[in-house]
Amino acid sequence: MIVLPLIERKRDGGRLAPDEWRALAEAYAAGAVPDYQMAALLMAIYFRGLDREEIGALTDAMLRSGAALDLSHLRVGRVDKHSTGGVGDKVSLVLAPIVAALGVAVPMMSGRGLGHTGGTLDKLESIPGFRTDLSLADAARQVEALGCALIGQTGEIAPADRRMYALRDVTGTVEAIPLIAASIMSKKLAEGLTGLVLDVKRGSGAFLPELDRGLELARTMIALGADHGCPTVALITAMDRPLGRACGNALEVEESVLALRGEGPDDLMTVTYALGAEMLLLGGACDTREAAHAAMRAVVADGRAAAKLAEIVEAQGGNPGVVEDPAVLPQAPVTRVWRAPRAGVVARIEPRAVGRGIIDLGGGRRTVADAVDPAVGFVITARPGDRVAAGAPLATIHARDEAGVEAGRAALEAAVRIADEAPPPLPLVSHRVTASGVEVLSPDPA
Amino acid sequence: MIVLPLIERKRDGGRLAPDEWRALAEAYAAGAVPDYQMAALLMAIYFRGLDREEIGALTDAMLRSGAALDLSHLRVGRVDKHSTGGVGDKVSLVLAPIVAALGVAVPMMSGRGLGHTGGTLDKLESIPGFRTDLSLADAARQVEALGCALIGQTGEIAPADRRMYALRDVTGTVEAIPLIAASIMSKKLAEGLTGLVLDVKRGSGAFLPELDRGLELARTMIALGADHGCPTVALITAMDRPLGRACGNALEVEESVLALRGEGPDDLMTVTYALGAEMLLLGGACDTREAAHAAMRAVVADGRAAAKLAEIVEAQGGNPGVVEDPAVLPQAPVTRVWRAPRAGVVARIEPRAVGRGIIDLGGGRRTVADAVDPAVGFVITARPGDRVAAGAPLATIHARDEAGVEAGRAALEAAVRIADEAPPPLPLVSHRVTASGVEVLSPDPA
Repeated sequence: MIVLPLIERKRDGGRLAPDEWRALAEAYAAGAVPDYQMAALLMAIYFRGLDREEIGALTDAMLRSGAALDLSHLRVGRVDKHSTGGVGDKVSLVLAPIVAALGVAVPMMSGRGLGHTGGTLDKLESIPGFRTDLSLADAARQVEALGCALIGQTGEIAPADRRMYALRDVTGTVEAIPLIAASIMSKKLAEGLTGLVLDVKRGSGAFLPELDRGLELARTMIALGADHGCPTVALITAMDRPLGRACGNALEVEESVLALRGEGPDDLMTVTYALGAEMLLLGGACDTREAAHAAMRAVVADGRAAAKLAEIVEAQGGNPGVVEDPAVLPQAPVTRVWRAPRAGVVARIEPRAVGRGIIDLGGGRRTVADAVDPAVGFVITARPGDRVAAGAPLATIHARDEAGVEAGRAALEAAVRIADEAPPPLPLVSHRVTASGVEVLSPDPA
Repeated sequence: MIVLPLIERKRDGGRLAPDEWRALAEAYAAGAVPDYQMAALLMAIYFRGLDREEIGALTDAMLRSGAALDLSHLRVGRVDKHSTGGVGDKVSLVLAPIVAALGVAVPMMSGRGLGHTGGTLDKLESIPGFRTDLSLADAARQVEALGCALIGQTGEIAPADRRMYALRDVTGTVEAIPLIAASIMSKKLAEGLTGLVLDVKRGSGAFLPELDRGLELARTMIALGADHGCPTVALITAMDRPLGRACGNALEVEESVLALRGEGPDDLMTVTYALGAEMLLLGGACDTREAAHAAMRAVVADGRAAAKLAEIVEAQGGNPGVVEDPAVLPQAPVTRVWRAPRAGVVARIEPRAVGRGIIDLGGGRRTVADAVDPAVGFVITARPGDRVAAGAPLATIHARDEAGVEAGRAALEAAVRIADEAPPPLPLVSHRVTASGVEVLSPDPA
């Protein structure tokens, strides 16, 4: 494979043909294209972009570099959700059981945490015994039997993307919308979906903080979904503060279990239900958004959603007792309350600082090889806008030892700002994006 | 060494501090920075550029990654010439002995051919026995004894540049002026010079065909020279046709020998003397350009320049008899005259096509590992503007075998265009660039 002319053409603002993308992805997956040439091409793409046909061809090429879930024999809709990632974002753990309990199949492939954001796989693996490394065949069987499987990107899925993502991560080429879209969609399209819902975060803790960039990513992925016969809808949601209270792997599983038992924090439930309604509509289980919301509340209230999680956990080797008693999760040896350093209003809870704090506690990764301590993290009970007295408890640090407590304290000091006044936070669910356009659901505060 | 933030900063239009360039070059030379990260950084530099201080810091860092010639004890000026490369460009072989014969030391470090342009080292090595791999210590001794050494970039010189250049060559990042300038100057500044003359080619066969890009490169290198205490002057010369008649390693040595004996083609002598005058002025051997030209003609006429080449060849293990009898050079087994396919005027002799023809004959490299056949090439006696009859001899192909003859014929057919009218060629020496500005020596034809 002669890659240099392709690099030069993209560098000079030209385009690559579909068969060139295909040959490139195949050769790269086979190790026949050196990483340094791919890195140069990726940086050229960062500057020059890809047009819609190129993004489609690259997505297709990465998709075809591996295997796919075959769920075409199922008679029900098959819908997944993808989030661009955030801090405290445990929506998948709550959403998948709810939607599956309502008869839409959820073949959910998730990732690990890297950078300041957490990853669903790491959260799931804090459940004792839980395995995320199912083969595609086993995952397909489980989706058929239970309506849901929660798995990782196996080596079988889009190996070209897998290698390329790892390279982007160390070459400053992560934040390129065409590459982000192609990477996400090459995996999602391998799930054999009939619909896809995107949770595109915005705000300071989001991967793409600016609304216009989030909308551009949403539109790009929606177009890709449409071109591949997978109807796709995106919601723009807030990541200017952590979602829910718990931040840290086992702590987030515990909060998810509580949410499935009807005791979830309002912000988490608002986002979960908004995404769930889109999934149920796309999956054909409900005809209206109102009906979808009612159905979701019902399966939470009557215990079917929690029972579905227990089934999934058991099927994947985990201790299903976690749904009855979250105390089976790993517990941090040291907990310490963190208190308001002054009286005032909680003006900011900066997600990136919280996410970095989890890493400092040992609960996240600095490099892909790092092990993760599942027990550590924060439970932040304060919310932006809360009026607090000096010394009021705002959060609990869950740490491995006293050094962890100190790291956690430093992180919270950096993350939480108490002031005399608080600017209004972003609306939790602000925009709905479809192939037909952008609908403003909740305008930004003036 | 944590490289990712540097890549991201450059990608986003920021700058790296001098100590960051130094640490980067050191780590890269030591193999502690992976090529894929350097490739991404190089592509980001391609798009974002480097400012004058950054170019200086990078040059410095690459220079300091290795050793340097120490010639500071010499009482004479030490001046080298660098060319951006061309086809038939054997100026170095003629120029170095002439200037050295006039008392200016010429510690000349040259490169190999790659792409369509030839390399001085390959030409020199066509002289039986000639060694270009002198150590720096041996080169310094030879410069002291003879006033000249003609050597390659040893592993001691700027190893960071060496590795980076190889990487640029396969990642589409060669044509970035700050990188070109830093690469050239990191090697030239290691020669312990008191002055440097640049031959910046322009025209279709040049590395940077456009005049404005050539001028930008010249200005960048002149600024770098000034910042490092090495006065630097550039001439812009024509590479819209091959220089001289001989194209191919041994053939060019033969033409160089003839030139030193006063039988060189006019265009070669014009460029050689123009560059030589600048070297003699910078080296303090002459006070005026007119005096320099007279002095150069004198050492050619009286045989001192040819004798100097013989001394250098002998000192570097080569057969000095080449100066008396160029027939000691490797001879191609097959020669074939190539004739004008029609009557008319020679409108174009395209250097890139000629250069690629040399590669097709086996006389150049497709990859750095390729061996070079020293004997093959072309002697093109036709000049742009010549009126020719159909069937008139225009060139001789020197080939290894009949297949080579065919390849050579195809190359000449592609390179030489005969038409009813010929556009005027570029002036041979058109601009002189110094730290004070650009002087037009010969305006372009209207």
